[in-house]
Amino acid sequence: MIPRYSRPDMVAIWSPETKFRIWYEIEAHACDAQAALGVIPKENAEAVWKARDVDFDVARIDEIEAVTKHDVIAFLTHLAEIIGNDTARFVHQGMTSSDVLDTTFNVQLVRAADILIADMDDLLAALKRRALEHKMTVRIGRSHGIHAEPTTMGLTFARFYAEMERNRTRLVTARDEIATGAISGAVGTFANIDPSVEAHVCAELGLQPEPISTQVIPRDRHAAFFAALGVVASSIENVAIEIRHMQRTEVLEAEEFFSKGQKGSSAMPHKRNPVLTENLTGLARLVRMTVVPAMENVALWHERDISHSSVERNIGPDATITLDFALARLTNVIDKLVIYPDNMIANMNKFRGLIHSQRVLLALTQKGISREDSYRLVQRNAMKVWEEGADFMTELKGDAEVTATLSEAEIEDKFDLGYHTKHVDTIFKRVFG
Amino acid sequence: MIPRYSRPDMVAIWSPETKFRIWYEIEAHACDAQAALGVIPKENAEAVWKARDVDFDVARIDEIEAVTKHDVIAFLTHLAEIIGNDTARFVHQGMTSSDVLDTTFNVQLVRAADILIADMDDLLAALKRRALEHKMTVRIGRSHGIHAEPTTMGLTFARFYAEMERNRTRLVTARDEIATGAISGAVGTFANIDPSVEAHVCAELGLQPEPISTQVIPRDRHAAFFAALGVVASSIENVAIEIRHMQRTEVLEAEEFFSKGQKGSSAMPHKRNPVLTENLTGLARLVRMTVVPAMENVALWHERDISHSSVERNIGPDATITLDFALARLTNVIDKLVIYPDNMIANMNKFRGLIHSQRVLLALTQKGISREDSYRLVQRNAMKVWEEGADFMTELKGDAEVTATLSEAEIEDKFDLGYHTKHVDTIFKRVFG
Amino acid sequence: MIPRYSRPDMVAIWSPETKFRIWYEIEAHACDAQAALGVIPKENAEAVWKARDVDFDVARIDEIEAVTKHDVIAFLTHLAEIIGNDTARFVHQGMTSSDVLDTTFNVQLVRAADILIADMDDLLAALKRRALEHKMTVRIGRSHGIHAEPTTMGLTFARFYAEMERNRTRLVTARDEIATGAISGAVGTFANIDPSVEAHVCAELGLQPEPISTQVIPRDRHAAFFAALGVVASSIENVAIEIRHMQRTEVLEAEEFFSKGQKGSSAMPHKRNPVLTENLTGLARLVRMTVVPAMENVALWHERDISHSSVERNIGPDATITLDFALARLTNVIDKLVIYPDNMIANMNKFRGLIHSQRVLLALTQKGISREDSYRLVQRNAMKVWEEGADFMTELKGDAEVTATLSEAEIEDKFDLGYHTKHVDTIFKRVFG
Amino acid sequence: MIPRYSRPDMVAIWSPETKFRIWYEIEAHACDAQAALGVIPKENAEAVWKARDVDFDVARIDEIEAVTKHDVIAFLTHLAEIIGNDTARFVHQGMTSSDVLDTTFNVQLVRAADILIADMDDLLAALKRRALEHKMTVRIGRSHGIHAEPTTMGLTFARFYAEMERNRTRLVTARDEIATGAISGAVGTFANIDPSVEAHVCAELGLQPEPISTQVIPRDRHAAFFAALGVVASSIENVAIEIRHMQRTEVLEAEEFFSKGQKGSSAMPHKRNPVLTENLTGLARLVRMTVVPAMENVALWHERDISHSSVERNIGPDATITLDFALARLTNVIDKLVIYPDNMIANMNKFRGLIHSQRVLLALTQKGISREDSYRLVQRNAMKVWEEGADFMTELKGDAEVTATLSEAEIEDKFDLGYHTKHVDTIFKRVFG
Repeated sequence: MIPRYSRPDMVAIWSPETKFRIWYEIEAHACDAQAALGVIPKENAEAVWKARDVDFDVARIDEIEAVTKHDVIAFLTHLAEIIGNDTARFVHQGMTSSDVLDTTFNVQLVRAADILIADMDDLLAALKRRALEHKMTVRIGRSHGIHAEPTTMGLTFARFYAEMERNRTRLVTARDEIATGAISGAVGTFANIDPSVEAHVCAELGLQPEPISTQVIPRDRHAAFFAALGVVASSIENVAIEIRHMQRTEVLEAEEFFSKGQKGSSAMPHKRNPVLTENLTGLARLVRMTVVPAMENVALWHERDISHSSVERNIGPDATITLDFALARLTNVIDKLVIYPDNMIANMNKFRGLIHSQRVLLALTQKGISREDSYRLVQRNAMKVWEEGADFMTELKGDAEVTATLSEAEIEDKFDLGYHTKHVDTIFKRVFG
Repeated sequence: MIPRYSRPDMVAIWSPETKFRIWYEIEAHACDAQAALGVIPKENAEAVWKARDVDFDVARIDEIEAVTKHDVIAFLTHLAEIIGNDTARFVHQGMTSSDVLDTTFNVQLVRAADILIADMDDLLAALKRRALEHKMTVRIGRSHGIHAEPTTMGLTFARFYAEMERNRTRLVTARDEIATGAISGAVGTFANIDPSVEAHVCAELGLQPEPISTQVIPRDRHAAFFAALGVVASSIENVAIEIRHMQRTEVLEAEEFFSKGQKGSSAMPHKRNPVLTENLTGLARLVRMTVVPAMENVALWHERDISHSSVERNIGPDATITLDFALARLTNVIDKLVIYPDNMIANMNKFRGLIHSQRVLLALTQKGISREDSYRLVQRNAMKVWEEGADFMTELKGDAEVTATLSEAEIEDKFDLGYHTKHVDTIFKRVFG
Repeated sequence: MIPRYSRPDMVAIWSPETKFRIWYEIEAHACDAQAALGVIPKENAEAVWKARDVDFDVARIDEIEAVTKHDVIAFLTHLAEIIGNDTARFVHQGMTSSDVLDTTFNVQLVRAADILIADMDDLLAALKRRALEHKMTVRIGRSHGIHAEPTTMGLTFARFYAEMERNRTRLVTARDEIATGAISGAVGTFANIDPSVEAHVCAELGLQPEPISTQVIPRDRHAAFFAALGVVASSIENVAIEIRHMQRTEVLEAEEFFSKGQKGSSAMPHKRNPVLTENLTGLARLVRMTVVPAMENVALWHERDISHSSVERNIGPDATITLDFALARLTNVIDKLVIYPDNMIANMNKFRGLIHSQRVLLALTQKGISREDSYRLVQRNAMKVWEEGADFMTELKGDAEVTATLSEAEIEDKFDLGYHTKHVDTIFKRVFG
Repeated sequence: MIPRYSRPDMVAIWSPETKFRIWYEIEAHACDAQAALGVIPKENAEAVWKARDVDFDVARIDEIEAVTKHDVIAFLTHLAEIIGNDTARFVHQGMTSSDVLDTTFNVQLVRAADILIADMDDLLAALKRRALEHKMTVRIGRSHGIHAEPTTMGLTFARFYAEMERNRTRLVTARDEIATGAISGAVGTFANIDPSVEAHVCAELGLQPEPISTQVIPRDRHAAFFAALGVVASSIENVAIEIRHMQRTEVLEAEEFFSKGQKGSSAMPHKRNPVLTENLTGLARLVRMTVVPAMENVALWHERDISHSSVERNIGPDATITLDFALARLTNVIDKLVIYPDNMIANMNKFRGLIHSQRVLLALTQKGISREDSYRLVQRNAMKVWEEGADFMTELKGDAEVTATLSEAEIEDKFDLGYHTKHVDTIFKRVFG
């Protein structure tokens, strides 16, 4: 994560302040549950909540950790400084550090997922708005980068909408994957702590108790979580590539919004670079690269080793912060994307009607001309367009062998764009309901 | 895919025979739908079904493709040889190759997913059986490869069961992800074919119509599919690593089944290698490596480019065949895994009671001894165990300062394994219901 | 690997026939060395060479392996059938299977590297030829897909040449990485075999003895090997993307060669798809995906585990066969690439001289006009070009404030393409010597 | 990168201060070269060096960038504040931002490589020292985690030494890969700047001029660089896994150094966790995950797009900082690793001589006993050891059928460890010269 590609709300989730706050809540809720069980006195449990509104002193905790070399102990020591030793000695009873650390990590991931889902909602809204706006803005569809048949800009946006809606579902599933907590002890047997503590803490934090944990929550959950982020990132790349193509000089069907103030824009108006979507292409790689290590983290030795930890300390913040930034940036790009319908028409007509050659071919065969003859007829007119710059419809109308079969009106009909847009409504209904 | 790591049912899904059979069904169902629309004559649509029970001649199709350089045309030409040109010329009307190819690929992935889900059910059954069998077989739990607290072998199996049950859900979700078909034309506009054809073909093939496609079905679906396989593979590695550890000479708590006939086993009884689980570790890497290219496939140019195709021709069969084989192999390993409860006890007792030192420490503090003093007491006895090979309980009982606080019975209680297994029932209920 | 993307010479390296041939040579050379040491009789060593010209019967070996479940023993049994038991019992003495298997794998990788290097030489030759041919074929250089300054097609080819020449070096280094053999026994101590046997066998096979092996040759070598292939593949993608861009309809500066016979080409002359380079993009992903598992293979347990084996059985053939095919395909594409210099000029002039705006700006400032004023002058003329379709040079010549500073000749000079090509020679000298 | 896993020298390379310092040096050297060409006045070029000892004000540059939205312009503006506008206007003439940015990135990577190479030298020294120290410390070699034949701890260290020496070579090669600079303009044609400027700047910075660049230095170089780091990281994992295995409770042949002060160590002496090497396992994944995105960065659009940039802003610092930290941590681990030779012997003898069964088998056959009979003899004695806890040598000596063939001395000879260590010298000579 680097500041340039991050937004404050997501960054805040990964701050030491947030982490210690969650630690505290876990400990305090655990005390409540322990008190309910009679393991510790009720008044002590209540007293732990004295720190409810206190801002923990991160520097102080770091100072203590420098001595104890143990982060949870450092935190508990600092907590004791706030709530007093008499209360503090009842805190963390029967618990292991991992109970706190692992549950906290999942709380952070859940909160991160919530932001990502909200980001996605914003993106969906932008895509839908642009889809409706350009529902019937005709442009050429391309396969292999080559003109194929007409489509509309609205269908492009609608397609991205449908893809991102699937991604929203994936994010929700990913959130569920890691919305579990565990307070089950050193090897997951609840030897030193009653399962009801786990149940209470999880309920308070909006988590499900992990049905069976070891010292840690199983990492297949996290692998699935990061895999989902990787898919979302790949879809962002998909949209970004489309826009980069649309903005390239020879195409120029769209441009990323270019604020008036941005230097150099008007003396070199041809030089507006799709830097935001290029950047998104790179950010997608950064999110995607976290998928494999998250999967490598699944195979831990016996009841746990700590190899996953350094990986997660990095990819936890990095992947979520980068994806949050990327989603927001993409929303902004879509929202303000400058569309050039005239250029779309101009591009589509680059070969003066040739894109309709297949329809003409079909029309001839349907009128009973053999496939070979139809082909020959289309070909000889197409070649004049291709090689001599002629207009396809004009040539067809001037070819007696063609007009013997197809009337002028029939020829013109084959160039009708409405033929290609007749099901746009149907598709929009499928996508937007 | 290599034969050594493959099973026939999954391989069959990816055979040319299966592929052509699905192509045929798509074309024939499409003809029915076109006939219902009045686009082609009903009797011609019916006549296409004449090939219903014909085995297509793969060699013949290859022969034609060598000339036409186009696989779908080659197939249609061969089909015409069977059903006659008069019928054949109504086949494939208004369709593009991708309609057939992409829908077929998804049918194959759906069938592959069905096999994988069935494989997973077998694995779950084996894990459950072994979990119940060894529910109370005590062994030491380990963190960092170091003895921590007792757990049971049943909990280990139950843990893998829970993980694989999540993986089953992921496979079902993955199956849903790619259970769509598209017959929407060159750029997805249905310009040349009515959406009802797509609806009919998909219904017949057990697919949902893709709400909005281009020339192809969007690849975020496939990325999510392969990502799910990657998570499953990582879980397989997780189980494999556990068994490899259990079988290593110094641990020997379990062994892969070793058939009597296998050479060398009894002259070197110490040399039984966990080759199956080592193999599974490698197979997991093979499945996992397909995740990133599947994600790289998402960003296609405009309405499609064909960069994804060569990737999928490989990873489609490879990932599913390898995972099918791996799941079946793992089921077999779990099913026949030889468990050595005596060695588990021996390992647990390696340090003559030291694993209970924490409980003793806690007991002392709970009796009012200061943390420092408790620690000192435990430490001086622990050191005799560690350095001189003494027995921890004996030492404690012989330490007057200890016995001043803890009675013999209380000391013995701290060594009770029942303390660690008291919640096994609870956990099993969570996992198995 | 699938037949569609493979070439016979590389495939042959990975055939069972080749494998058994190498096994045989290792065994026979080892016998010679053992005879020289007096460990086995000279005549027996010589007798092993009786099988020198025999084609081993793969089906027979498979048959034996089905019983023995051990590939090397199966081979030795078959060898005994050929050279007789009396000779055969001296074969493989003191050796372990891995001595044979691991050394063989490296021989195969070395041979594969030799083919890849030869492929690269072909590609280099094609790139050089095209670079010289189009050394001065001017086209617009682009950053961000946006027109920047003129360059030449020859520089593009020369750039790919330089990149591939670096890749050639990387392939040679990669070859060296895995050109080692080991015949050092079960844990690499030479307990049962003299180091001189290893030395002799390696010398005969063109390998270096691995300075220190365990049961296996260390896998960092293989990781480095596959990483090199991954870099080469990424460079192939780099060239492929360039061509795909050049061929897209709106650019059309080049096309993959399209044979006359290919169906559909002339009735739809606009529809020639860059399918070869799209395919190369996908093949690059396939090669690249082998890098991470090859790296995961490095960490083996103690003196070896066999987790790497299943990975290598796949990625060994797959990565080399795919890369061989890709290099050959790319050479063919480059060799026959149809270049359209006229379209290059037309594209460059799309904005009627605007690409020279920066030079004009600079010229004005160099004549003493303030940066702000220069900018204003260029901007007002550029805007007429951009918004009204005017010609930039004409506008400048008609702008009194401009001509007050720059003469007509000076203005024209700023549009001189020679300015941009003046160092092409220098660069070509750097690249081609 | 997170502070926990980073060291100051490497972090400093990636600081804004270092970056601006390199930018400055590039600009100042470029001015010298421009002055030598007569493009700018000599005194102005000299005047640029006034800032030689100035610490640039990062906050001020950020402030300017917030307005200009362009980092290089912001820097140049700040530079002008220091050296004065009259001098500053000659700076950066004919250059593009990428000339500065790309060359700077390579300078940073070169410096990072230098640190990594020095780190590697430290690691090599530690490995060599420990190898020599434990050259003849016998322990059991293991394949598949199962006891195989004896080896020595020194051979293990020597093996890691040889592997890391190869990695050192790879780092040197990687350094060479990216030790190039480019000052070649917007599309690499040197249109606005003479190649001699590039030559001068590169010479001053210890770089080679990039033979042919576009707007950027070709990214295959960077891909190769990060691939090399990935291989090194994988080797670190290899060593880490070995140590983790050695430290696991049942093996206990070595332990990471455990400082006396570390809490909990002596009351639970069995609970010393190999957390450093577990951490290294995770760090290896973090470095390795940068390889694929670095390879994805190779394929840029035409003369450059900026998709690579966000990737490199992350993986540049992250991979080098993490690898530096990991190498230093590993050196420390190796340096202080506590070795337990007694436990090595105890482990080796776990099955009371069974590891020598193969030698006995061989000895019997060499004395003329048939393979079947030899096997039967070994087996019946081995089984007593395996199942009844007997001692293998004692059993053999008591088996009349065995002693009929092998004398007591001959039997004892088969248990001689010297047999296994006889070539340690040879191997050490190969590795250490």
